[in-house]
Amino acid sequence: MKIGIYGASGYTGQELLRLLVRHPDAELIFATSRRFAGQPIFTAYPSLIELTELDFLDAGPEEVAQMVEVVFLALPHGTSMKIAPVFHRAGCIVIDLSADFRLHNLAVYEKWYGKHEAPDLISEAVYGIPELCRDQIRRSRFVANPGCYPTSVILGMAPLLDTDWIDRSSIIVDSKSGTSGAGREPQMGSLFCEVNEGLKAYKVGGQHRHIPEMEQILSQLSGEPVTISFTPHLLPVNRGILSTIYVDLLRSVTVDDLVEKYNEFYGEENFVRIFPKGMFPNLLCIKGTNYCDIGLAVDGRTNRAIIVSAIDNLVKGAAGQAIQNMNLICDLPEEAGLTLVPLFP
Amino acid sequence: MKIGIYGASGYTGQELLRLLVRHPDAELIFATSRRFAGQPIFTAYPSLIELTELDFLDAGPEEVAQMVEVVFLALPHGTSMKIAPVFHRAGCIVIDLSADFRLHNLAVYEKWYGKHEAPDLISEAVYGIPELCRDQIRRSRFVANPGCYPTSVILGMAPLLDTDWIDRSSIIVDSKSGTSGAGREPQMGSLFCEVNEGLKAYKVGGQHRHIPEMEQILSQLSGEPVTISFTPHLLPVNRGILSTIYVDLLRSVTVDDLVEKYNEFYGEENFVRIFPKGMFPNLLCIKGTNYCDIGLAVDGRTNRAIIVSAIDNLVKGAAGQAIQNMNLICDLPEEAGLTLVPLFP
Amino acid sequence: MKIGIYGASGYTGQELLRLLVRHPDAELIFATSRRFAGQPIFTAYPSLIELTELDFLDAGPEEVAQMVEVVFLALPHGTSMKIAPVFHRAGCIVIDLSADFRLHNLAVYEKWYGKHEAPDLISEAVYGIPELCRDQIRRSRFVANPGCYPTSVILGMAPLLDTDWIDRSSIIVDSKSGTSGAGREPQMGSLFCEVNEGLKAYKVGGQHRHIPEMEQILSQLSGEPVTISFTPHLLPVNRGILSTIYVDLLRSVTVDDLVEKYNEFYGEENFVRIFPKGMFPNLLCIKGTNYCDIGLAVDGRTNRAIIVSAIDNLVKGAAGQAIQNMNLICDLPEEAGLTLVPLFP
Amino acid sequence: MKIGIYGASGYTGQELLRLLVRHPDAELIFATSRRFAGQPIFTAYPSLIELTELDFLDAGPEEVAQMVEVVFLALPHGTSMKIAPVFHRAGCIVIDLSADFRLHNLAVYEKWYGKHEAPDLISEAVYGIPELCRDQIRRSRFVANPGCYPTSVILGMAPLLDTDWIDRSSIIVDSKSGTSGAGREPQMGSLFCEVNEGLKAYKVGGQHRHIPEMEQILSQLSGEPVTISFTPHLLPVNRGILSTIYVDLLRSVTVDDLVEKYNEFYGEENFVRIFPKGMFPNLLCIKGTNYCDIGLAVDGRTNRAIIVSAIDNLVKGAAGQAIQNMNLICDLPEEAGLTLVPLFP
Repeated sequence: MKIGIYGASGYTGQELLRLLVRHPDAELIFATSRRFAGQPIFTAYPSLIELTELDFLDAGPEEVAQMVEVVFLALPHGTSMKIAPVFHRAGCIVIDLSADFRLHNLAVYEKWYGKHEAPDLISEAVYGIPELCRDQIRRSRFVANPGCYPTSVILGMAPLLDTDWIDRSSIIVDSKSGTSGAGREPQMGSLFCEVNEGLKAYKVGGQHRHIPEMEQILSQLSGEPVTISFTPHLLPVNRGILSTIYVDLLRSVTVDDLVEKYNEFYGEENFVRIFPKGMFPNLLCIKGTNYCDIGLAVDGRTNRAIIVSAIDNLVKGAAGQAIQNMNLICDLPEEAGLTLVPLFP
Repeated sequence: MKIGIYGASGYTGQELLRLLVRHPDAELIFATSRRFAGQPIFTAYPSLIELTELDFLDAGPEEVAQMVEVVFLALPHGTSMKIAPVFHRAGCIVIDLSADFRLHNLAVYEKWYGKHEAPDLISEAVYGIPELCRDQIRRSRFVANPGCYPTSVILGMAPLLDTDWIDRSSIIVDSKSGTSGAGREPQMGSLFCEVNEGLKAYKVGGQHRHIPEMEQILSQLSGEPVTISFTPHLLPVNRGILSTIYVDLLRSVTVDDLVEKYNEFYGEENFVRIFPKGMFPNLLCIKGTNYCDIGLAVDGRTNRAIIVSAIDNLVKGAAGQAIQNMNLICDLPEEAGLTLVPLFP
Repeated sequence: MKIGIYGASGYTGQELLRLLVRHPDAELIFATSRRFAGQPIFTAYPSLIELTELDFLDAGPEEVAQMVEVVFLALPHGTSMKIAPVFHRAGCIVIDLSADFRLHNLAVYEKWYGKHEAPDLISEAVYGIPELCRDQIRRSRFVANPGCYPTSVILGMAPLLDTDWIDRSSIIVDSKSGTSGAGREPQMGSLFCEVNEGLKAYKVGGQHRHIPEMEQILSQLSGEPVTISFTPHLLPVNRGILSTIYVDLLRSVTVDDLVEKYNEFYGEENFVRIFPKGMFPNLLCIKGTNYCDIGLAVDGRTNRAIIVSAIDNLVKGAAGQAIQNMNLICDLPEEAGLTLVPLFP
Repeated sequence: MKIGIYGASGYTGQELLRLLVRHPDAELIFATSRRFAGQPIFTAYPSLIELTELDFLDAGPEEVAQMVEVVFLALPHGTSMKIAPVFHRAGCIVIDLSADFRLHNLAVYEKWYGKHEAPDLISEAVYGIPELCRDQIRRSRFVANPGCYPTSVILGMAPLLDTDWIDRSSIIVDSKSGTSGAGREPQMGSLFCEVNEGLKAYKVGGQHRHIPEMEQILSQLSGEPVTISFTPHLLPVNRGILSTIYVDLLRSVTVDDLVEKYNEFYGEENFVRIFPKGMFPNLLCIKGTNYCDIGLAVDGRTNRAIIVSAIDNLVKGAAGQAIQNMNLICDLPEEAGLTLVPLFP
């Protein structure tokens, strides 16, 4: 497969590079970057020295669309909507890692993100969580790759939404994200000294743009509208999102029930690991991989279930899931290029 | 004031030393440690070289009780209950930093911690959160110094429990603690490589021993029994606890209402800082100090209040609050020895 | 003393604020910042909420010079040389934390830094390491506050340069600095994800601008020209510089000789702590303080002395030493406002 | 290939597991651990859940030697010498990751490590740095896998020792190691709070046991006895060693000369990456991989060369190099199982 990365200056772009240089079926044709145009990729990412000979390209989508069969868009929202249509029209398989095509409802998109410039394309896009909509993805040529927080929350909640055990209005999500989620653009809040030894909540009170994305999918899974409370926190680690989810139980459910349900729901999934009773995920145990680890508990005193879900935000929360989606569409083994073992410690 | 520290090998003992060597009215007479007996304090804590000439003592409480007016017990629970009575009988003011005398109800204590060996003394102990029970503390000679998680949660919730705005059965606390909370005893789970770049929830499902302590005080403040969900997380920072608290609102309340209520409730308190609307605490901004910083939000979409509360677990969550209590009992200025400015960054 | 801080947007400015809000003899009159003009200081530094009521000022030096007796300049080099003369002419005591007036030799300055715009003032400035030139500082009204790396190296080497034990041409300095040394300006290389879990050498091969500063003072102390090799490294910690210094011995010297010499040389100094044989400094043990900790070894196999010197780059390496200099000039106790205990852990 | 790991409780054992579960030609037959005997590997290493079905075994070497063709010994020195002979006699290929068979000179071993209990086997062992002794390794059945510090230093120095450009008596090595090098045994000095935000030198003054190992190989490469100064530092990162090496030049050499020499010396080596002039290694850029990255500089002012060398201590410094050695002996592609891309950030 001939592959291009459009917008490779940031951490997501780098992660695509990291994974694709070793993908058994991928040939990387181009990686664009305005900032690093013309420079060898290793000048921006010394980690990749001797792993790729490519230089960054600064080229419009029209110029490069014919060169590849698959293009990954690692662009900010608002930009992606201008670029995606070009690649789509040119017949490329498009995996868009921005938020631009995740929300099916135009009004909801425009409320949270501002004006949409390619509204016609929204209905073309398939939301790309393979574990939940594998067949749709296989048949599509345009994937809206999920957000990082939503991936951790949706995978964590899906099995429970497949039961009548919970009060759907009671979902509270407390998420903690590593700093790579803030991107590689220099900004004061992402400086080492502003993050290290710190922890803060941000966009408290239902302000984060991933909320409508989560609610859209949770509602679909649920068959009824679901509204959630969601608080993100900025964590002094490079990678990883850990979401702790609280939900009221409508009837008596044990941890064993939960573990059984989750195991059954995810069955033979390659990239979801349900922890046995009493064990809980740790960001250290999924680093660099496409896994979503899930641990389960019941607080009998208050009759709530607690779900702890962990992913690497750059892999399952971005580049890894994007490649998983590509593999599906291109009829490659779903785990091709993704047989990664967590880097511990 | 002649002061002793009984059990000074751990991080809490060290923190008492750190604060007391500069306390304007304190003269440190002894610090005991079995592990470091006979050695200069700086061999265990090189940070304190040239700041104290004391050697660690290995001595029974009877031997040293006559030497001091105030003793701090920085011992594990179960040990404190054996030592505290000796100092109490000898007439010392006792500030106990263990959990042994925090729970008024013996049965509750024994359910969570095991057999109590000094049950008669429980009723003597005053729970030491000065902002909520200053007068009692002033009149007492025996303080049960609060736990670190409880301090952050109780100070965060107290103003709301003074209203009829919330559903008291809906309190969910998601806390994140720095690793010094795990103590200085070597154990695998506290090794650098097991914590750094990680994040994990632990004692998920209502298992943590600080739960009955929080519920006892929240119930007192509330005038009715309060049960909470509480999930602690281990954070890769040295110091600090940040608690994110979720609570259902029974009626329409704005952030401004919350901020006003909290400011009114805490009035001129020296050590509680209520953040203006839109600002939230960060562990980096309270490091090394006795502050409890509180930020407030309302999620209008789900009608929940979110309270974010941050303390330094070793200061306001342990040694600093202990000294604040000592200052009250000894009729010193409450902030003596505690006029610390956060170490940022 | 009425005090002003000119240029308070960065970490050094913040550190001056942190220390001055509790200085017993200082009254902070203004702190300027173009970036945060008109905003309360706590909007830029939430750690200082309720600790100062000041707003940042955006004002020329002429406007504010009459308001204060002492001004600290926390400006980049090149800017300081334009501002300092105004305050100096107005009669203020000036403590300049930039590099602009540290080098006595104009040609050397211009080789490393570019054109100097206030060359006449260079001879007015006293280099401000109190332990080495206390009397000169006391008599001066204009201090060139030393660089962070130079402070650690000069204090580490001074006693040995007072002997004939070493080969002065053999000095090799391997320094490691926390990231606050890179400042608060957003830049990619200072992002959390670029620093955390990393370590790199930079300006390798005698490129760092602190080299002429170190060589100037080492040569003065030595009575002959001294040239050194110096390699700085960027460390994933917030604060601190640790310098490991290697020097060939010309004759047989023991660790005991070194320890004795250093103790004798620094005698009753408040802020230099010579470690006993076998103990070595740790950045964790000087955090937040004005100490310089020094440990000493001899490698008998190669006949070299190894000196390990640690400071907090923002305190002894910047703001703390600046205040120590102010105290000297203003005839205050040298340790006023600087009786800080290391924040461990 | 049927593979066993003898002593898999520590970080080195885990790293072997991490790499071997994905090695295309390796079948893992057993992993022993006294501490975790009988437990699934994922109880000790949750990162490996679903990646291996093995339980830890507690078995003597005699019991398991027949089960495998290759055994990795990840044991402390002193223990390895008791176990290695059994596997060797049983005909296994032995890769010993301890220090027990690295030193050819028994007297030197016993001076630094204590009594050797299998001195006859010392001459059987080949020192396993493939880049320097590939042919010997290919022909051997018993490899003494190099220490982590020595790997970084020897690879960094080898090309220069192949010239007459340097003063061999002037080598000074300043190394900084991540904390995984200290092992997984609980000890106070490795606790998160003792390491995080800190930096310290240890075993200063020529005390570290890796010194004779480095000197042995550097002397071999040099053809004459080489003595070095070596100071290790403990770094608050999980993985990685960065060595900054200083050496006096005997004649005029440019950076270009160095880069050319190093490129020529290492030619087509898969795992050594020579950085172009002006670029230097960063621990962040080799994480999780078998690379040794090398950057070069000349300090013209002092006529010294500075070599900066970086490896992942658990991979090229331990498990990765061990597998590289196995690949060589077993006539597999040298990079089998080691085609890892650095985890950045």
